[in-house]
Amino acid sequence: MTGRLTLYIGTKAWSSWSMRPWLALKLANAEFEEVLIPLREHGTTPALKKLHGAAKVPVLHHEVNGQNLTVWDSLAICEYANELFPDAGLWPEDREARAHARAAAAEMHSGFAPLRKNCPMDMAREHPGRGLDAEGVAADIARIEALWAEARSAYGAGGRFLYGRPTIADCMYAPVVSRFRTYQPELSETSLDYVAAVSDWILYRTWEEAAVKGV
Amino acid sequence: MTGRLTLYIGTKAWSSWSMRPWLALKLANAEFEEVLIPLREHGTTPALKKLHGAAKVPVLHHEVNGQNLTVWDSLAICEYANELFPDAGLWPEDREARAHARAAAAEMHSGFAPLRKNCPMDMAREHPGRGLDAEGVAADIARIEALWAEARSAYGAGGRFLYGRPTIADCMYAPVVSRFRTYQPELSETSLDYVAAVSDWILYRTWEEAAVKGV
Repeated sequence: MTGRLTLYIGTKAWSSWSMRPWLALKLANAEFEEVLIPLREHGTTPALKKLHGAAKVPVLHHEVNGQNLTVWDSLAICEYANELFPDAGLWPEDREARAHARAAAAEMHSGFAPLRKNCPMDMAREHPGRGLDAEGVAADIARIEALWAEARSAYGAGGRFLYGRPTIADCMYAPVVSRFRTYQPELSETSLDYVAAVSDWILYRTWEEAAVKGV
Repeated sequence: MTGRLTLYIGTKAWSSWSMRPWLALKLANAEFEEVLIPLREHGTTPALKKLHGAAKVPVLHHEVNGQNLTVWDSLAICEYANELFPDAGLWPEDREARAHARAAAAEMHSGFAPLRKNCPMDMAREHPGRGLDAEGVAADIARIEALWAEARSAYGAGGRFLYGRPTIADCMYAPVVSRFRTYQPELSETSLDYVAAVSDWILYRTWEEAAVKGV
């Protein structure tokens, strides 16, 4: 990989979408500059409109060969990282496992609106029970637990991550792990083991330490 | 590609998410069986719960080497089709254009909730103006127009599709073209040209003909 990568991210305690490609780039051992745009608790942050037409973080800039490439969506940035660093194994090597992992990542990307709305990421704080009774939240959590269990049982190769070693799928679900630590729903033993594995992951902890510091 | 592909889709007039990977598989000249699950206008269709834990169409089954692989998300099925048919050019060949196309596809995959909610796909019917005044719809349409114009101007190579010839990005936005034909917002000349190009696309017309017949 040549050129210069800059990842624009939001407030680390809240910006679940920023966390995902940040983890993927770190997982690929990419060198990149991160630029933090502090988010407002309510309403749109004006700086986001200047950053890109979609007015959202994350955004990746790649300066290469005098050209500036902009990739403005979390999952697309993860796919781009996979293309820039093909030897990093960001997706599972096996085609079937990779298809499953992409479907899992895509379901997170477009789904689970009730959980996302009622239990927003608020890293390193605890709100036990809050939001869990809202419509659709229990069904979202049940579906996530089933998906995690299926991935680990079919493709986990006895490891603690979804597809053995960490992949983009774990990057996509890491903010759900954070939510489960904050809102503390009742979870199965296997889900709790996955939550513990991701919480202990050095890349997760690095992001979390910064989130606790309020950056 | 070996094995047997089956794509489970919903009612063609309504199921925008089914249309996307159907177009991508057709674009790749894939042989596949399609199984239509008639959707209810309100509430969940019980057959969907039997089909897959996510209880949504589309779902792709791939029987190969005695194994059954399930891919249960529209974008993940498109990516899987790209892997099965690497010579079909489902994504743009140029890395930069491909990154842009993936971001455009991903923005559609997770975004534009106001447009999707207030102007649902209702193919081959006309409801001029309906839903267009709802909160967020005008902003969604403006963002889509900007994105289409940017893709065509930067990567369209003078063609009428977003990245020259048809790609997964066009498959993802085809249901928006259908919505624009149904709800008829005011659009720029360049957007209208894109709407006309997609409407004339043989694969779009094939889906639409079936939708009109009510299947």
